[in-house]
Amino acid sequence: MGKTYDVIVVGAGPAAWSAAIFAVRAGMSVLVVGVDSESGLADASDVRNFPGFPEGISGRTLLDNMIVQAKNQGVLYKKQEVTHTEEADGIFMVKTSDLSELRASNLILAHGANYIKANLPGEKEHNGKGVHYCALCDGPIYKGKKVVVLGNANLAAEEAMELSAYVSEVQIVSQSPQVNFSEGYKGLLESKGMQVTLSRVKEIKGDGDIAKSVLLEDGSEISFDALFIALGVASSLDFARQLGLEVAGDFIKVDESMRTSNPKVRAIGMARGGLNQIVKSVGDGGIAAVDLIKSVKGLPSYIDHT
Amino acid sequence: MGKTYDVIVVGAGPAAWSAAIFAVRAGMSVLVVGVDSESGLADASDVRNFPGFPEGISGRTLLDNMIVQAKNQGVLYKKQEVTHTEEADGIFMVKTSDLSELRASNLILAHGANYIKANLPGEKEHNGKGVHYCALCDGPIYKGKKVVVLGNANLAAEEAMELSAYVSEVQIVSQSPQVNFSEGYKGLLESKGMQVTLSRVKEIKGDGDIAKSVLLEDGSEISFDALFIALGVASSLDFARQLGLEVAGDFIKVDESMRTSNPKVRAIGMARGGLNQIVKSVGDGGIAAVDLIKSVKGLPSYIDHT
Repeated sequence: MGKTYDVIVVGAGPAAWSAAIFAVRAGMSVLVVGVDSESGLADASDVRNFPGFPEGISGRTLLDNMIVQAKNQGVLYKKQEVTHTEEADGIFMVKTSDLSELRASNLILAHGANYIKANLPGEKEHNGKGVHYCALCDGPIYKGKKVVVLGNANLAAEEAMELSAYVSEVQIVSQSPQVNFSEGYKGLLESKGMQVTLSRVKEIKGDGDIAKSVLLEDGSEISFDALFIALGVASSLDFARQLGLEVAGDFIKVDESMRTSNPKVRAIGMARGGLNQIVKSVGDGGIAAVDLIKSVKGLPSYIDHT
Repeated sequence: MGKTYDVIVVGAGPAAWSAAIFAVRAGMSVLVVGVDSESGLADASDVRNFPGFPEGISGRTLLDNMIVQAKNQGVLYKKQEVTHTEEADGIFMVKTSDLSELRASNLILAHGANYIKANLPGEKEHNGKGVHYCALCDGPIYKGKKVVVLGNANLAAEEAMELSAYVSEVQIVSQSPQVNFSEGYKGLLESKGMQVTLSRVKEIKGDGDIAKSVLLEDGSEISFDALFIALGVASSLDFARQLGLEVAGDFIKVDESMRTSNPKVRAIGMARGGLNQIVKSVGDGGIAAVDLIKSVKGLPSYIDHT
């Protein structure tokens, strides 16, 4: 039986590295288990809303910086997919895709949540090159341009309204026979005169690297500068179920210190929901790690330096 | 009468710049009013727990990066101390030390909270050079070294316990005739065999640039590698009072979207309390700005991409 780490962080995106850095600096043994290329950050072409980089930074570079920074301070990284988590006799076991079994006294779940893909021909190869999944992140790139939003529920309406602040023209393609917007969103879309096309996209077509249009099922084509796919976020509650954690909708329920219903398990970043932005994920990581440090040291609950 | 900005951000630390960046990217007119050198970040010699900088970064450089990044995207910066805030007819007025009067439809309060200084001879000139105010931030620099904590209340006990994870020797000097620790902290300090000296420091003495010892009122001296001053955080509720906002202890009360009791005023970073770390401050900034964007656009309350 191998070493029991003070904490295993499940996931390898910005929330995970932030938590790991704080924990290791307090003298804890910290193992990050996950695959960093699966983080949404790895695909972000140009990050301009994470403070500290005047000219922006590619998501891949920012993520690499975080990994090196964590390793420099003593964080260990096992680059493997986590396949199972369980608790027995107060110790957590984490199994990975290479059949390793790792042990820890505490867990921080930072496995993220993935945008639901449309699984269209041309989608994957144009990801980040005219095909996007987050208006807030990538909308400002298309100032004054024409964009199409794919989806039939409130998220699509929300993304379309969000984009209308940046771009000159937005339309929605439902990707289903009907739309399912709330009355509030219906009113907003109508007040904007937003065009909603009830049709299904068959294929995303590009000009070289860059996505340029969608081919609809009736054979017509809609050209654009960018397509925003707004089908939602895939729930990732497998670990929550394995560990018997309380959930809230598609996410793991936490308190303001990021504790789940099991006081030795914390959930951060999109695993616990909230704003899907790097700033919020690294914030969650710091809050969770400091709460963990206090718990492990047996200190009273955190004092806000008052 | 001058322009009415969509939002004025009061303060010029990391929470402020994060909020400003998010808001300006959504097409809002954003004015930051404050003095960045007053942010605690400006004095941090070596920041190693803000993810993205493998070898660490000086606080001053990180802050400059944030300012340039915000300006690059269209944020305006008025580098003046805010002296007064008020609301009249739904418009906020912000007065500054150069007697300007600035107007905005929304406010984000990011004025921070300052560590209470001991006001000792030698304190200011050794700030960051052997004199510190935050164990979590600067404790790891002194691994294996000897440190002294100055203070007589639970915060001092907490900082001493926190430091004991990093350093080889900690003692507390009370700076008052008696200590005022809770039973919980008393027990923790006793279990660690922590030495508590009931005395007053008269002066911080240095060897060149670096603080090296404290001179006590009885003429004796205690040498150290670092002195952590743990007298608390100065309340900064002036603006909250001027605006009639609800407070919680020393901080402005907010909900999970950082809204205060006035829905057009948000409070972030240490103005609203919580973890005093850059990651949490930039997270607060993003959360507040996105909530503001939704409000201004008349969108329903934020959808967590579900």
